[in-house]
Amino acid sequence: MRLERVVFALNGRRYEVAAGDVHPGTTLLEFIRTRTPFTGTKLGCGEGGCGACVVLIATYDPTKDAVTEFSASSCLTLLYNINLCSVITTEGLGNTQDGFHSIQKRMSGFHASQCGFCTPGMCMSIFTSLANADKSKRPEPRKGFSKLTVSEAERAFSGNMCRCTGYRPIVDACKSFASDVDLEDLGLNIFWKKGDKGSDVSKLPAYTLGGGVCTFPDFLKSEIKSSLLHLTDVSDVTVSGVDWYHPKSIGQYYDLLNSGIFSDCTVKVVVGNTSAGVKGYKDRDLYNKYIDIGGIPELSVIWEKDSGIEIGAATPISKTIDILEQEAGSILCPNGSVVFRKLAEHMSKVATPFVRNTASLGGNIILAQKYPFPSDIATILLGAASTVRLQVYSETLEVTFEEFLEKPPLDPSTLLLSVFIPNWASDSQKESNVILETYRAAPRPLGNAVSYINSAMLGHVSLNEPSGDLVLSNLHMAFGAYGTEHAIRATKVEQHLTGKVLTPSVVLEAVQLLRETIVPMEGTSHPEYRVSVAVGFLFSYLSPFAKGIKGPGKTLNISSAGSLDTDDICNLPLSSRRETISIDEYKPVGEPIKKYAVELQASGEAVYVDDIPAPKNCLYGEFIYSTQSLAHVKNIKFKASLASEKILTFVSANDIPSGGQNIGSSLMFGDEPLFGAPVVEYAGQALGVVIAETQRYANLAGKQVVVEYDTKDLKPPILTVEQAVQNNSYFEVPPKMYPKQVGDFCKGMAEADHKILSTEVKLASQYYFYMETQTTLAIPDEDNTMVVYISSQYPEVAQSSIAKCLGIPFSSVRVITRRVGGGFGGKAFRSCNVATAAALCAFKLRRPVRMYLNRSTDMIMIGVGTP
Amino acid sequence: MRLERVVFALNGRRYEVAAGDVHPGTTLLEFIRTRTPFTGTKLGCGEGGCGACVVLIATYDPTKDAVTEFSASSCLTLLYNINLCSVITTEGLGNTQDGFHSIQKRMSGFHASQCGFCTPGMCMSIFTSLANADKSKRPEPRKGFSKLTVSEAERAFSGNMCRCTGYRPIVDACKSFASDVDLEDLGLNIFWKKGDKGSDVSKLPAYTLGGGVCTFPDFLKSEIKSSLLHLTDVSDVTVSGVDWYHPKSIGQYYDLLNSGIFSDCTVKVVVGNTSAGVKGYKDRDLYNKYIDIGGIPELSVIWEKDSGIEIGAATPISKTIDILEQEAGSILCPNGSVVFRKLAEHMSKVATPFVRNTASLGGNIILAQKYPFPSDIATILLGAASTVRLQVYSETLEVTFEEFLEKPPLDPSTLLLSVFIPNWASDSQKESNVILETYRAAPRPLGNAVSYINSAMLGHVSLNEPSGDLVLSNLHMAFGAYGTEHAIRATKVEQHLTGKVLTPSVVLEAVQLLRETIVPMEGTSHPEYRVSVAVGFLFSYLSPFAKGIKGPGKTLNISSAGSLDTDDICNLPLSSRRETISIDEYKPVGEPIKKYAVELQASGEAVYVDDIPAPKNCLYGEFIYSTQSLAHVKNIKFKASLASEKILTFVSANDIPSGGQNIGSSLMFGDEPLFGAPVVEYAGQALGVVIAETQRYANLAGKQVVVEYDTKDLKPPILTVEQAVQNNSYFEVPPKMYPKQVGDFCKGMAEADHKILSTEVKLASQYYFYMETQTTLAIPDEDNTMVVYISSQYPEVAQSSIAKCLGIPFSSVRVITRRVGGGFGGKAFRSCNVATAAALCAFKLRRPVRMYLNRSTDMIMIGVGTP
Ligand SMILES: Cc1cc2nc3c(=O)[nH]c(=O)nc-3n(C[C@H](O)[C@H](O)[C@H](O)COP(=O)(O)OP(=O)(O)OC[C@H]3O[C@@H](n4cnc5c(N)ncnc54)[C@H](O)[C@@H]3O)c2cc1C
Ligand SMILES: Cc1cc2nc3c(=O)[nH]c(=O)nc-3n(C[C@H](O)[C@H](O)[C@H](O)COP(=O)(O)OP(=O)(O)OC[C@H]3O[C@@H](n4cnc5c(N)ncnc54)[C@H](O)[C@@H]3O)c2cc1C
Ligand code: FES
Ligand code: FES
Ligand code: FES
Ligand code: FES
Repeated sequence: MRLERVVFALNGRRYEVAAGDVHPGTTLLEFIRTRTPFTGTKLGCGEGGCGACVVLIATYDPTKDAVTEFSASSCLTLLYNINLCSVITTEGLGNTQDGFHSIQKRMSGFHASQCGFCTPGMCMSIFTSLANADKSKRPEPRKGFSKLTVSEAERAFSGNMCRCTGYRPIVDACKSFASDVDLEDLGLNIFWKKGDKGSDVSKLPAYTLGGGVCTFPDFLKSEIKSSLLHLTDVSDVTVSGVDWYHPKSIGQYYDLLNSGIFSDCTVKVVVGNTSAGVKGYKDRDLYNKYIDIGGIPELSVIWEKDSGIEIGAATPISKTIDILEQEAGSILCPNGSVVFRKLAEHMSKVATPFVRNTASLGGNIILAQKYPFPSDIATILLGAASTVRLQVYSETLEVTFEEFLEKPPLDPSTLLLSVFIPNWASDSQKESNVILETYRAAPRPLGNAVSYINSAMLGHVSLNEPSGDLVLSNLHMAFGAYGTEHAIRATKVEQHLTGKVLTPSVVLEAVQLLRETIVPMEGTSHPEYRVSVAVGFLFSYLSPFAKGIKGPGKTLNISSAGSLDTDDICNLPLSSRRETISIDEYKPVGEPIKKYAVELQASGEAVYVDDIPAPKNCLYGEFIYSTQSLAHVKNIKFKASLASEKILTFVSANDIPSGGQNIGSSLMFGDEPLFGAPVVEYAGQALGVVIAETQRYANLAGKQVVVEYDTKDLKPPILTVEQAVQNNSYFEVPPKMYPKQVGDFCKGMAEADHKILSTEVKLASQYYFYMETQTTLAIPDEDNTMVVYISSQYPEVAQSSIAKCLGIPFSSVRVITRRVGGGFGGKAFRSCNVATAAALCAFKLRRPVRMYLNRSTDMIMIGVGTP
Repeated sequence: MRLERVVFALNGRRYEVAAGDVHPGTTLLEFIRTRTPFTGTKLGCGEGGCGACVVLIATYDPTKDAVTEFSASSCLTLLYNINLCSVITTEGLGNTQDGFHSIQKRMSGFHASQCGFCTPGMCMSIFTSLANADKSKRPEPRKGFSKLTVSEAERAFSGNMCRCTGYRPIVDACKSFASDVDLEDLGLNIFWKKGDKGSDVSKLPAYTLGGGVCTFPDFLKSEIKSSLLHLTDVSDVTVSGVDWYHPKSIGQYYDLLNSGIFSDCTVKVVVGNTSAGVKGYKDRDLYNKYIDIGGIPELSVIWEKDSGIEIGAATPISKTIDILEQEAGSILCPNGSVVFRKLAEHMSKVATPFVRNTASLGGNIILAQKYPFPSDIATILLGAASTVRLQVYSETLEVTFEEFLEKPPLDPSTLLLSVFIPNWASDSQKESNVILETYRAAPRPLGNAVSYINSAMLGHVSLNEPSGDLVLSNLHMAFGAYGTEHAIRATKVEQHLTGKVLTPSVVLEAVQLLRETIVPMEGTSHPEYRVSVAVGFLFSYLSPFAKGIKGPGKTLNISSAGSLDTDDICNLPLSSRRETISIDEYKPVGEPIKKYAVELQASGEAVYVDDIPAPKNCLYGEFIYSTQSLAHVKNIKFKASLASEKILTFVSANDIPSGGQNIGSSLMFGDEPLFGAPVVEYAGQALGVVIAETQRYANLAGKQVVVEYDTKDLKPPILTVEQAVQNNSYFEVPPKMYPKQVGDFCKGMAEADHKILSTEVKLASQYYFYMETQTTLAIPDEDNTMVVYISSQYPEVAQSSIAKCLGIPFSSVRVITRRVGGGFGGKAFRSCNVATAAALCAFKLRRPVRMYLNRSTDMIMIGVGTP
């Protein structure tokens, strides 16, 4: 069961990787970007949150001769996980050589790309949606269109972030494929002139139903068919070395466990590996062994029983949603189907489509069981009174969801096999109706944002004869994600409400009990907010049944319980726009013209700094930064760990050559040091750069750092403007930048109707959030010269900073900026420090050095802009 | 005995290569240049003939705690052969960062580098000579000098070719270190002004006795010491896979043999692997298995007996020379020592110093035994009446050299253990003197040129009482290399001469008999020349003893036979120069100034095209060229072989994009096609490019090609100017290039004293022989643009050719020329075809493509210049 090689197709080409050749912790994205010619797939966040890395993964079932296609975040999917799959990136849709795909052309024609960094991921999300819609059994669409609907088009790339363009034009490009689109409704584009009544599908780059791309090459189908006959797996467990195991039965899993590998090396058990994108659960070190349990058949069961449905733990969340929706559809009793439908709907807001496609149901639940993880799924399954089936060595046991969550954190000896969700339809007799509502409070309505708090409440509602009042019974009121170890049931509230007529005082007491129940853990942000939202949820749930309370919800029409379903995501109002159409007067000024080379951005051929092929011997750097402000750095050490073994060297202020200076960038207020040495001035200031052979190694190695600080003889840091004023600590503003008085303030105020007597204005600040983090590639050239590629808004400043830091003439530094994946001011001066650091490393090591800041380092180090 | 990993030091850094990671056929040069940051070591010929690749290899003997240093051609030495060695390249001598080495600085100061391509190799040859001289027990030299002598300095880099600079300045740089140099004698330099009496060692960049470089790092010493305790070798023989075996005993060798690997895969038995540089014996395919027999102790014996000396077959030729010289020195009888001394002397002309350091005695002899190889060593050993010891499975046998040579070509079941050379001193009694002379006719006196013919003649000369004439007996007259299967003894001549007084008629008859004996094989070039040289050798040998013949040689002074030794190499007159020293009149014009950046050339930091780090996914191309002139190419196929398995694709005229044209370069006479398609016009014309993952794979794959030609309907090719005139086949010369008449020819001739009535002038042509062969790197960039690095004298022509060939705008082609390793006109138009071919491949494959023509392809394809 040890994997010897990974075979897959990438844009139709065969790739075979010997297991020893690539570390099993390598993500699909890392492999594609560093080992293949395709660099269209971008790294934006590395945590499943931005969509820049979206690819299409296709799997093939030889028994059914069927191909399944789905989008996935290649930044989380591990390379070994796609054995025998086919992967399509945007280059596979179309390119300069083979011609561009209509998606790519329409992205261009609808002005749907600016910096272009998000565009390949957008294209892949759109393509997957089109391909899957066209595969469906829906009726044939109008000629030239897809089966996709406008409403689906609006959601096709939910999860894909764009920081420059705004989503309208992208939605337009996507909608232009929809079977039910009114082309007139679409915005400004190069295909026709708005208002000219010229919109007509024939003017659009032609679309072929199905997408027109072979997503699964025949050679791989044959290989899969023939590999059915002879398995090439090695069955032994080697304790030394770096391996990937994929047990094919529960027995094999426990064989592995019994072999002792868990005691001897660091092991990671994975299904979709998306937990690597979850805050707090990201890899903090390298692992030596991976056990992929996704191939154990018991973990993929789907068992529809009368009493409910059992879903294997390895089932992806998106498939779980499909199953639940299907199940809901197959239940005649509307009142019963609502539970499955509501669960499915709630799950559609978990993460992003491309994460849900690989993230397993079980993985989510296990996270919720083991760690204080704000899971939605655990909460709603608890609310739906689910049970789970567990395996512990040779024993199988079934426990309620509550019992499961309350167990001590599971260790690898327990496998979660499946989840059972009861079918409430069988319960719903004439005399009672099942009511389930789920809630989540999160920053975005379409998902891709972890909940501040979530809840699922289920109860039976019945008429209290003879009063005719509605009463609730059999209540399951689950709350989670509010800063709790795991989701809980508000049992006191349930008991209190059971059988009672919901008078204002009963409800108020319930609220009081809930407030006592929902107690966010120490350190949770906005605790009061979360509690008050919980109260709101309770109130929403109860108000339809309450007596004499006018709630925000609808009133219950008991005869049609099915329609309780408060619409939100399914019936979001379609987005609309207002556009000012330019007049012809100054023609051709105002004429919409195509931005140059959007097709190249869309097809992934546009070259950003990190797309420049790594030169031979290239090394990778990750910043070590201070976590304190104003302190002496006494010592920088690295914990002994697998990742720290990968450290080739550590470059710090000591490595600045004798003629050079500790300068990271030259600001208008003077030079800024590259490293906080010997005293760090602020948290996030660089202390050095750790160098390794891959960016991932460097990043993980950076996490092993232990810095010893000392604040002896130092004043407390100045952290606010007020403290700065108090301490008389000012930048010297160059005279030409002094603010100039405009108008006569006193006169104006004196004449004003409403006078400002006293006021305080505070400007908040915001992270720049360019899609491409800071990145640079420094290549030493002959005679102490340095060629530095940089994603910068100020390459000239980088040149002077590098020259000053290295103590070499300006003429020996060549700074080249290629495409910039968003800047918004954040790649002005701040990009120079990164370039200077890389140049210093390259100068010291005499080897090319690349740095591509991971999102969290970028957020911490680069700082923020003020509006 | 299977090697699991190679551990070595390169410029003090530790390198460890897992056996599976690098093909065992990889040369040290290939590894250094493609896998390390050091690209100073250059590839000039790949066959041990130019010295561009010379490195210092140091070995460590832990039992004696002794380091041995020698120069070696890294283009022939295999990576696996340097396990546990330390390698120093010119970067290790000095560099920008650590400061340059005095050799590098003096190369600059003595104007000893122009294109700089030969310079790193020169530096390494010089350094090795200095280091070894300084290690010797000679007396301390003057302060600031080395123990090297001027005479050694003249030879220090014999074998290193320079095409630009001329050797004088290089010799000067080297001589400047010599203990016995008169600095006044040295040529123009920047350290003092010629004639100013300012020459003084303190003005030269300082030299530290010993060289000042640690050639063997301590960590490797410790590793070697500790590896003595536990051997990590794997003892099994795996039949599949690519492996390197190094049996440590004769038994282990035969275990390997018995395991059947020879029958199942392609195996190469190696010691120094220098045969890979010998014409006709170069690798023509990949091998799967290598057996390094150099570690079998019986092959390294040195056994001095009274009767002679036995030398293990694996002994390097240079060490054999040392042993023979030592042996000669230890023999008191001058007449006896002469044999060993002569053999040593002759061997010093075999190959080059850096080849002799790794080439084994046995390897040479085996080549001579198996193939018609023009060995010097076989001839002289035959002449010296040597015997050899062979192992065939468990049996050991000793045979005379003649018997050995006459055996059918040996197969791997026979191991050559050692060579025994009799000590003729024991024979040389008062009454007879041993006379050995060896001869070789070759283009160059100091070696580095294979013989046209060679010979060794040994005889006992004695006084024929009572006549008082000298007579010869016990003759061994060996001749080789003249176009023979192997060296032979002229037995008829020997018999004829034995005991006879050498009257003119006796000698003449001997000549006649020799002419009957020396019969070059069919197809040998210049057969008559070779035979007449043989006669000359005979005559030279006999003349001192002949009666009434005045020979070219010296007359024999029988009492001091030791001085027979006709000096050549050991007493070459030192080179001298004549220089015109500029006068001060136009100062600073005429002032010697340092050429810019010679130190960078010398330290290997100067970047030539092939030194640009290979971009990720870079592929390599090798031309397939026509071997016929004027023919239809019907079919291009590749033989099934290990090398042809490495072919990724074949690019030909069919791959020229639709808008492009079959243009390789735009000459002043019009465009020249890139490929000879559909009709080839001349032998050497490109037919296509074979693409593989390394240059070596591509080169070997190219050798597998089988082209089918067809000359139907085609006239015979035009091969001479006369045929061209006859066929009225002219280039159209642009009017502005028409020759203009200068003066009045008729008038001049009429007035001349001596009139030319009729004449014919023919200009011969010559290969350009730039040290760096044609090389280019084409990198596709976004939007169908192409960045092409090229070593060219006409980059602007390359730009237009590439644009025309690919059918893209000129502005989409960026041609960059970096340093050019020699051009001499050969990198004008001819370099453009190479660039265009690589650009086409890169365009088709969308990956960077590099081409670095191997010397033989370059010679065949690039053509020649006329003076
Ligand atoms: C960008 C993003 C946004 C997200 N947003 C939300 C959200 O809004 N709400 C929400 O609830 N979740 C959210 N998630 C979490 C997501 O649902 C989980 O990461 C995912 O379900 C984990 O499944 P996996 O297969 O990838 O698990 P893996 O990462 O492969 O495994 C996770 C852990 O579970 C263990 N494990 C997995 N299956 C089993 C099993 N059957 N038996 C025993 N152990 C097992 C593994 O050993 C590992 O320790 C988000 C995730 C991402 C990346
Ligand atoms: C540039 C150059 C110039 C040269 N000029 C000359 C010259 O002028 N005159 C001249 O005579 N030679 C010349 N040579 C040849 C040179 O001497 C031989 O290449 C060298 O001696 C071979 O030794 P090796 O250890 O490198 O053999 P390898 O290349 O390692 O082996 C050669 C062959 O011998 C076999 N072999 C080696 N040792 C044994 C053994 N002990 N038992 C059985 N089989 C064995 C191997 O299996 C292989 O087939 C020249 C070579 C080069 C590269
Ligand atoms: S989702 Fe993968 S990089 Fe952001
Ligand atoms: S165009 Fe979408 S992030 Fe820049
Ligand atoms: S001697 Fe090695 S490249 Fe010429
Ligand atoms: S300088 Fe020696 S070959 Fe050019």
